[in-house]
Amino acid sequence: MTPLAIIPVAGIGEVRAGDEIADAILAATTLEPGDCLVVTQKIVSKAEGRLVPLDPDDLTARHALVESESVRIVRRRGDLIISETRHGFVCANAGIDLSNVESGFAALLPVDSDRSAKHIRDAIRARAAIEVAVVISDTFGRAWRRGLTDVAIGVSGIAAVIDLRETPDALGRVLHVTEVAVADEIAAAAELVMGKASNVPVAIVRGLDASWFRDGSVRELVRPPSEDLFR
Amino acid sequence: MTPLAIIPVAGIGEVRAGDEIADAILAATTLEPGDCLVVTQKIVSKAEGRLVPLDPDDLTARHALVESESVRIVRRRGDLIISETRHGFVCANAGIDLSNVESGFAALLPVDSDRSAKHIRDAIRARAAIEVAVVISDTFGRAWRRGLTDVAIGVSGIAAVIDLRETPDALGRVLHVTEVAVADEIAAAAELVMGKASNVPVAIVRGLDASWFRDGSVRELVRPPSEDLFR
Repeated sequence: MTPLAIIPVAGIGEVRAGDEIADAILAATTLEPGDCLVVTQKIVSKAEGRLVPLDPDDLTARHALVESESVRIVRRRGDLIISETRHGFVCANAGIDLSNVESGFAALLPVDSDRSAKHIRDAIRARAAIEVAVVISDTFGRAWRRGLTDVAIGVSGIAAVIDLRETPDALGRVLHVTEVAVADEIAAAAELVMGKASNVPVAIVRGLDASWFRDGSVRELVRPPSEDLFR
Repeated sequence: MTPLAIIPVAGIGEVRAGDEIADAILAATTLEPGDCLVVTQKIVSKAEGRLVPLDPDDLTARHALVESESVRIVRRRGDLIISETRHGFVCANAGIDLSNVESGFAALLPVDSDRSAKHIRDAIRARAAIEVAVVISDTFGRAWRRGLTDVAIGVSGIAAVIDLRETPDALGRVLHVTEVAVADEIAAAAELVMGKASNVPVAIVRGLDASWFRDGSVRELVRPPSEDLFR
């Protein structure tokens, strides 16, 4: 196996509604076939015009917005709401974000982040004739563990989950179940070169296993409520 | 920011009780100061003699072992037990593993994985006079999301959680709370070059932010039950 490179893409600049993220990426860096681009939700939401006015000190308005972006409230404690979004993601505040957004506005999640990923991938192909994969990432908390990690909320051209159930292990036995959430691991790896305050909203992951590049969907990562013991 | 390299370390070979993992790593690769080694739990458990006899088809014995390694059963469904270990980790089957272990044996988690990480780090320093950080990784499931990811179960010489609460964001405002679980993201990044069946139990993460190299503990990642809404 070869090393992976995780390459921050600096110089993307502020993104506004209607901007083509692929143009900003191609102006800032050189891509290679087989690269996987990780693009943070925030600039995708901005490009897609998903900002809504919100007074950050108006808790009632904030809670109403979270509820309108949720299909199910999973837990509430004080100011914190853990809810399920229309996409099936379970996260704090329905993924609505106030940081790195113009004051007085909040950024909603993209309506369909697989489609957002496909849009960027198609635009890269159209402009540069390069085939890449795209992962849209966001920063979520977890049950049981402190600290946030970046996870995938949309993918295009890459598997979200790799199924190793039929692969013999190193001792020759067939493994029971090992479904690896590679898209989440790719998002987490990219976060290591982004930092929250350093304005690096895109990273390239170069050197991923070629067999992972296939049609994928973030729906592979959504555990159906019927299988879920914690909802 | 500079790129990160995630480098698989091949050629570690079978690890047996009493083996010094640092020797195997130094025989297989060349380290640089500031590298972060990610070492999978399985070879640490083997080196520390944490294998116990278990007939994989004897469900009663398996459940009794899981219970003896748990301080609290969080959920049960059919054959699956989600429990809390003495370390405070919430995971399936108390982290006990049957794959990539000699048939008829199961691998228990290390007693104290921070200590396991420190042991490897100290041994690298003693033998090669190189200062590295060490993360011990294991493969856990998550609430709400399908697929497994690698997370940190022990660290030495590196923060487990980075606190960005006081850092101004790119628009100059102070972020509310952004505690990033960097040790989990490092473990996830390393898994991308390991694969479950390819016998690569160690990876090097090269190029991490120098400010993250400090005394750390996996306890930073354990959410106290009193703060946890899902236990």
